[in-house]
Amino acid sequence: MTDRVRISFGDKEVRVPAGVSVFDAASWHGIAIDSTCGGHGTCRKCRVRVDGQVEVSTSDPRAFSEDELAAGWRLACLARAGCDLAVEVPPLVTRPKAAMVGVGRQVILRPAVQKRCVTLTEPTLTDQRSDVERLLDALDDLEPSVDLQAVRNLPKALRENDYTVTAVVVDDRLVDVEPGDTTAQRYGIAFDLGTTTVVATLLDLSTGTPAAVASMLNAQQPFGADVITRISATMLDPDTLGRLTGRAHETLATLAGEVCAEAGVDPGRVYEVALAGNATMIQLALGIDPEPLGVAPFVVASRALPRVLAADLGVRVHPGAPAYTFPALGAYVGGDIVAGMLASGMDRDKRVRLFVDVGTNCEIVLGDGHRLLATAAPAGPAFEGAAIRCGMRAAPGAVEVVKVDEDGVRLQVIDDVEPVGLCGSGLVDAVAELVGIGLLDSSGRLMAEADAREKFPALADRLREVAGERVFVLHWRDDEPAVYLSQRDVRELQFAKAAIATGWRLLVEELGVAEEDIQQVLLAGSFGSYLSPANAVRIGLVPKIPVLRIVSAGNVAGEGAKMALLSMRERAGADALLEEVRYVELSDRPDFNDRFIEQLAFP
Amino acid sequence: MTDRVRISFGDKEVRVPAGVSVFDAASWHGIAIDSTCGGHGTCRKCRVRVDGQVEVSTSDPRAFSEDELAAGWRLACLARAGCDLAVEVPPLVTRPKAAMVGVGRQVILRPAVQKRCVTLTEPTLTDQRSDVERLLDALDDLEPSVDLQAVRNLPKALRENDYTVTAVVVDDRLVDVEPGDTTAQRYGIAFDLGTTTVVATLLDLSTGTPAAVASMLNAQQPFGADVITRISATMLDPDTLGRLTGRAHETLATLAGEVCAEAGVDPGRVYEVALAGNATMIQLALGIDPEPLGVAPFVVASRALPRVLAADLGVRVHPGAPAYTFPALGAYVGGDIVAGMLASGMDRDKRVRLFVDVGTNCEIVLGDGHRLLATAAPAGPAFEGAAIRCGMRAAPGAVEVVKVDEDGVRLQVIDDVEPVGLCGSGLVDAVAELVGIGLLDSSGRLMAEADAREKFPALADRLREVAGERVFVLHWRDDEPAVYLSQRDVRELQFAKAAIATGWRLLVEELGVAEEDIQQVLLAGSFGSYLSPANAVRIGLVPKIPVLRIVSAGNVAGEGAKMALLSMRERAGADALLEEVRYVELSDRPDFNDRFIEQLAFP
Repeated sequence: MTDRVRISFGDKEVRVPAGVSVFDAASWHGIAIDSTCGGHGTCRKCRVRVDGQVEVSTSDPRAFSEDELAAGWRLACLARAGCDLAVEVPPLVTRPKAAMVGVGRQVILRPAVQKRCVTLTEPTLTDQRSDVERLLDALDDLEPSVDLQAVRNLPKALRENDYTVTAVVVDDRLVDVEPGDTTAQRYGIAFDLGTTTVVATLLDLSTGTPAAVASMLNAQQPFGADVITRISATMLDPDTLGRLTGRAHETLATLAGEVCAEAGVDPGRVYEVALAGNATMIQLALGIDPEPLGVAPFVVASRALPRVLAADLGVRVHPGAPAYTFPALGAYVGGDIVAGMLASGMDRDKRVRLFVDVGTNCEIVLGDGHRLLATAAPAGPAFEGAAIRCGMRAAPGAVEVVKVDEDGVRLQVIDDVEPVGLCGSGLVDAVAELVGIGLLDSSGRLMAEADAREKFPALADRLREVAGERVFVLHWRDDEPAVYLSQRDVRELQFAKAAIATGWRLLVEELGVAEEDIQQVLLAGSFGSYLSPANAVRIGLVPKIPVLRIVSAGNVAGEGAKMALLSMRERAGADALLEEVRYVELSDRPDFNDRFIEQLAFP
Repeated sequence: MTDRVRISFGDKEVRVPAGVSVFDAASWHGIAIDSTCGGHGTCRKCRVRVDGQVEVSTSDPRAFSEDELAAGWRLACLARAGCDLAVEVPPLVTRPKAAMVGVGRQVILRPAVQKRCVTLTEPTLTDQRSDVERLLDALDDLEPSVDLQAVRNLPKALRENDYTVTAVVVDDRLVDVEPGDTTAQRYGIAFDLGTTTVVATLLDLSTGTPAAVASMLNAQQPFGADVITRISATMLDPDTLGRLTGRAHETLATLAGEVCAEAGVDPGRVYEVALAGNATMIQLALGIDPEPLGVAPFVVASRALPRVLAADLGVRVHPGAPAYTFPALGAYVGGDIVAGMLASGMDRDKRVRLFVDVGTNCEIVLGDGHRLLATAAPAGPAFEGAAIRCGMRAAPGAVEVVKVDEDGVRLQVIDDVEPVGLCGSGLVDAVAELVGIGLLDSSGRLMAEADAREKFPALADRLREVAGERVFVLHWRDDEPAVYLSQRDVRELQFAKAAIATGWRLLVEELGVAEEDIQQVLLAGSFGSYLSPANAVRIGLVPKIPVLRIVSAGNVAGEGAKMALLSMRERAGADALLEEVRYVELSDRPDFNDRFIEQLAFP
């Protein structure tokens, strides 16, 4: 974990990892500084005056006089904050656009994709500059390297359009040159590549607004519902990796086609994609053998991922469009969580905050604005409805909310149809409600029928035996138990919540805080969004804090992917998390089992 | 043109463009400095002590103590020479290999392609570094970015070979990881992509020696013999560009296959290719519209070319192998000439030297170790045998040497068969010899038959009229003139040599020297190699200097391509020529025509 330094921008003080640029530090906290190159050190517009020790960069002497340098003037994008600083930002010449993304995050628009329409002077025998030099000279605030595609298109684009062309620059590369003025068309696609569901958002990078959204089931589903099954599939048959990679590409390509069609956008005007996914999904999508992710000691092929093109992911947009992939912190804290941390500002909040992405693999992050710890807890498939008698995914017919009192049971069912099963949030509700009234004791045992007849006459009929196992019936069909909670289901949930609670308790200890110091709990992921905060507290899944401080953060991975497209500075922030977050491995802790057993009971 | 600075390494003083690294300056002059990273600033072994002002680089403080820095110690690869310096180089720890390439150039082997065999420690639950981090940590002297292909192959390569693998690094990229120790297999292919002939040399990059050579006619031939015809073909039919690109790829791929087969080398062990060619050949090979090269104001798409892969040129070697392409100085002074300048050390010799590549387009470079001027003269196709009555290429049956004295004519014919035509060197010889004895006067007029009968009775019969034109017969078949030189042929040669002589004379004036100051003339290209220096002087094609100072440099473009593969430092030298050489455009000079007419006569 790197040290943090304090930077004050007028009244506002922020803490960032040492070595971060002043420009990024400001961007991450919503403070805009002038810039047209987006932070590459080429436009020399991000002039700030720094109080404190900051080295003179190689570009500073070209931007400032010696007196100015002595007075602390520096280019913010090249000024590395190695110690505490006070920074004075001149009034903005142009107010940059911003967009609300993520968990209430205001993001200053600095997309990697930039367009510049320029009209060049025609070459003559006394000005024989090459086409590329002529163009680059006109893009004086950008100094990109040049892709072959751009060189191929440039001669014709210039000569057929009276030397008016639009340069398409993505990050530090000139990826294409388009005839005429196409600056208004500038798009990117953010993908949330989930194990189950994949979501694509087409973003207008000029405004930061979504132009279309589409989602579908990951076409890898037939190879297994969860990551472990899919990893196992690749281990059994060497051809499976290629097939899974193909399915991932097919899924991404289908969604890309859909969002472009829906918005009426030419896919050739999509110049970048961003991809958030867990380590297994990303390795499969990139064709990297996932086997070492699935067996101890759980090793990712690479935390930061190589620069690849959208085409390498099978996505048919502009052929030069790069694909930004969020780095993974470990085999079970992947790029989806890094994206989620970005979207929820886990690294930029002074409060003690706990981030929990509930699922088969539950990722947990704890931060206090100074340090960040992450871990993964093997919760098992209970929340996905697997290993639960009447379990099912959150689909039509799933019981998603359960209320139980002495008089009876009320259910809320997805799509208001007849209940056919119990999804994760319904499972948590059912258990929490039964614990609440006492039909389940704190050890997780269902009350004996005789006791129930006495204490809960209206409910006692629901205590039955099905297939030799005690159950609590939630719904009857033709007088037969149709949807119910079994004793073993309760055990499954206990195991799951114990794994999660052990995880965050160990992080709380590692950080040296107390459970009650936690000021906010973010429940991430699709499951987290539907969970009742009160019931999550009641079963001990999350710390016992006021319910209003438990926030459903929604699809933070997808939000993080959008942010990466909208701002290179935010993306740099995500990449910086690799050094910032300390990954805590639970599986080799000698005290894990004891702690786990302590957490099995309900509070 | 950039300024030059003086650097002394002990007794040896060199002059290099300001801004060049001390490491490159030493390399270019055969002075070896320790290094394992090849000059990327990562191995920190190129320690030198500098007398004179050199900025402290960002890596220097990690390599030296404050006292050492104050004493002038710097890493040579990051030390930019901005003014005159004296450099002390510590004794070498390992003596690097060197190879003789080009025109007597000793090249220190620093190929972009490097291999490192490493054995890594196995991951554990307490050491969960990713596979890529584990590998990069072991390559502590290199800090490459990582290609997707390498990430794909790494997990299996490690786990199936007891964690012993060979990293393949090309320039600043990790392009692959191979199981076991493959360090002995490290190859590159140097291509000389000529308009007529294409040559490929497979180089063993560990030793610098050629493993196989192959050549063939450029498969673009059916589209035209010279660059202008091929450019015109693309202008007439929009599909022709694609076809010409395909033909170039086919030619390169065939040759690559041949050299690998001949040497028994797996094409997958060829990790880089280098390509020297004129601007038209290179643009066609890269699929870039050549039209602006063919019409005034003669503009290249890009002087420095984008980073491309061998695969982008249709060459099936290692899929991650990059292709280095020599930059072009202008539409008619292309990468072949830059390669030739590199191979002949035009920028590193204190003598006044003239480099002439004779052909349809004749490229001329003049340098004095301080400044370099280049131009292109439109010599026309006479040297290629086109527009010459009995002209032909230098192929079997071509008269290549002609000796004429008062008693008769002696011919030397390629492959010693019956003469069928006259190639460029034979044409120059025939004209020069006839001028020598006086059968041609200095204005280029053949002597009247009556005068010849009187002065050259043994030769007079050879003066005939064929198809209404006066000729001098060189060879008879069945008593009929079979191979002869016509009056119009002489005129064609006069035009060609006048264009060339005007070119170098203007450069001589621009440089501010006199013709007799020229200490060496390098005749480059396949034609130049066969030209008789004495006769080149006699007709005024080259300056009038002692014949021994006129040197046939051979295929310098191909030699330059080899040097680029063998040394990144040499390659940097070629790229530096872009800033070093001043291109002089002849076609817009108001005095060109007058000067041209002055040069038509023979001296």
